[in-house]
Amino acid sequence: MPARRYLFTPGPTPVPPQVLAATAEPVLHHRGPDFKALFAETLERLAAVCRTEYEIVLFTASGTGAFESAVANLLSPGDRVLAVSQGEFGERWQKLAAAYGADVVPLAYAWGESPRADDLAAALAETPAEVVFLVHSETSTGVVCDLQPLAAAAREAGALVVVDAVSSLGAVPLETDAWGIDVVVSGSQKALMTPPGLALAAVSPAAWERCERTSGPRFYFDWRRYRRARESAGSTPFTPAVATVAGLHAALGLILEEGLERAFARHAALGRACREGAKAMGLELFSPDEERSAVVTAILTPEEADARELVLALRDRFGITVAGGHGELAPRLFRVGHIGWFDVFDIATALAAVELVLGDLGAPIERGAAVTRALEAYAETVRA
Amino acid sequence: MPARRYLFTPGPTPVPPQVLAATAEPVLHHRGPDFKALFAETLERLAAVCRTEYEIVLFTASGTGAFESAVANLLSPGDRVLAVSQGEFGERWQKLAAAYGADVVPLAYAWGESPRADDLAAALAETPAEVVFLVHSETSTGVVCDLQPLAAAAREAGALVVVDAVSSLGAVPLETDAWGIDVVVSGSQKALMTPPGLALAAVSPAAWERCERTSGPRFYFDWRRYRRARESAGSTPFTPAVATVAGLHAALGLILEEGLERAFARHAALGRACREGAKAMGLELFSPDEERSAVVTAILTPEEADARELVLALRDRFGITVAGGHGELAPRLFRVGHIGWFDVFDIATALAAVELVLGDLGAPIERGAAVTRALEAYAETVRA
Repeated sequence: MPARRYLFTPGPTPVPPQVLAATAEPVLHHRGPDFKALFAETLERLAAVCRTEYEIVLFTASGTGAFESAVANLLSPGDRVLAVSQGEFGERWQKLAAAYGADVVPLAYAWGESPRADDLAAALAETPAEVVFLVHSETSTGVVCDLQPLAAAAREAGALVVVDAVSSLGAVPLETDAWGIDVVVSGSQKALMTPPGLALAAVSPAAWERCERTSGPRFYFDWRRYRRARESAGSTPFTPAVATVAGLHAALGLILEEGLERAFARHAALGRACREGAKAMGLELFSPDEERSAVVTAILTPEEADARELVLALRDRFGITVAGGHGELAPRLFRVGHIGWFDVFDIATALAAVELVLGDLGAPIERGAAVTRALEAYAETVRA
Repeated sequence: MPARRYLFTPGPTPVPPQVLAATAEPVLHHRGPDFKALFAETLERLAAVCRTEYEIVLFTASGTGAFESAVANLLSPGDRVLAVSQGEFGERWQKLAAAYGADVVPLAYAWGESPRADDLAAALAETPAEVVFLVHSETSTGVVCDLQPLAAAAREAGALVVVDAVSSLGAVPLETDAWGIDVVVSGSQKALMTPPGLALAAVSPAAWERCERTSGPRFYFDWRRYRRARESAGSTPFTPAVATVAGLHAALGLILEEGLERAFARHAALGRACREGAKAMGLELFSPDEERSAVVTAILTPEEADARELVLALRDRFGITVAGGHGELAPRLFRVGHIGWFDVFDIATALAAVELVLGDLGAPIERGAAVTRALEAYAETVRA
């Protein structure tokens, strides 16, 4: 018997068999009518998930590629930008903008903190910026920020607003147009429950306009090439990951069939189940204990148990992959992802295994409470 | 019954069911031991196919992304480069290098011509360049250049040699190390018979050294990030297309099991079968009628038949996708790809259908000769 494997990380996430089957269909030519129809509908479905009328640019790349596209298309060397960071990914975007020669003003929070709109407004009042970069869901810490007032503060200060929604899109509410966001960046491998390999940018008219005036080098990630290829040929400028597009098309169909509101409610319930279960075991949360923490739950181990040992034991004893913590947090932090194709029994499995391993590592935890509490919290939330 | 579909283009190419099945396996986490082992073996197999000891950098991108990586990592603004072009892709690389601010000296041949080493040596003697860009197989015309003397001429002139082997790698002989090539760029979706979405660069020590001194902006395509991630974590810096890596691993296994020499001989025989069949029908070849033309055969229609109508009729009547010609060549040119998972009966199918459609379009062609001659030529070549 092949060993069972459980993928409980915040990306890549488990992919439903219907989606895997779509990726394994015979390969289509990217200039043929079958692919063009699939591609057009995929872009429509992505726009629906982004809640936008804006044009979607789809890259064959990791999420970072789409983020680089925002930097390369919006910034010329010397442009001043403000980048809000509350963890690993916010810091990555600061490095990326700096690599393109931008004058990067950081608004840095400690890992685990949530950025605040009034801080952003004050920072922009002191040092105006042309573009503001925000991370919606900071996968390294489990913090999902309150995006709408942050975007409003940036917009009121006259900046374009770019949002990293790599792990949040499809999991928690995000209203691209209604919240005045100019660029939303995401990837296929998180709540969109498709294998990694595709990344997208939803681009507002103001961002398109700015991209025409930018002077830095760009080719593969040049938005304008994608617009031209779509308009002239209904396709992409370079051979796209056609099989992954077929998977994404199928996955988006499943998501829209469930309905976005229902998907958001399910993610909120999964997050609450995970937090309640962890607390019932006696563990301390690192993620904020609030409804928005619906993407990944970051949990601290008791001092007696090294989180790195926990992660390895889960993997080696049970075939369960959860994520560890970065840097200084590594000895105590682990993260359970619950985005995309997840239900509460995945949470139960993760908590049951964590309980077993922590007990064996000699940590003082409550036995037998986590799974029951998680299921109960899920039922309460779904009923509410 | 679902309609039969025949993909006879020079990329994406048909993918064997074993490879599609590998891509549809449950998704692996890119930092876990299962993926790391798969990734390491995939890089080894790629090095074997490239005939190199150099380090392989694997990107989640189209082939153009890997090509951009060569430009971004090797060139600073103002660097002088010589780019040889004999068709669409050579011209693309000239634009790409220019987009990065390089001083691009073109050595341009008419579409369909084969570049010559003595021309290159003379051009470099007149205007020295730091890097020379070559296209091994020009997919737009079917020309496969005689790469070894071209690379030698560039190297003798003191230039680094970058080769676009997107459609040639695995189909025709290419000796990265023995021929003194510094960077070989290719993609998953051609002779490597994997869905599109992965691109690679094999990078010589001299190219690594140069990449440390380059000043232009780069992040997603920065070779150094990939080296660090591989050395420190056995993985990639950004979430890779794990499912496509699983497919590529399987496909490379099939290729190495067949043996590279046998694969080259099969492609040469397929190319000859296609050319001989087309000639037997009375058609004129646009690709050179030589053994190296083993990737894609470019064929001219008789004046009576518009090639664009032929391409559409093949598609709409028979579900057969072949490629058209670009620009001025479009009214007369069509291209039959025969790379990767192909055998002679695919050539027979393509020729039989072309014969039918051209006859219906009123073109004066010989009926009933092409398939027989193609099979005969294939058998002769394989026996030889």
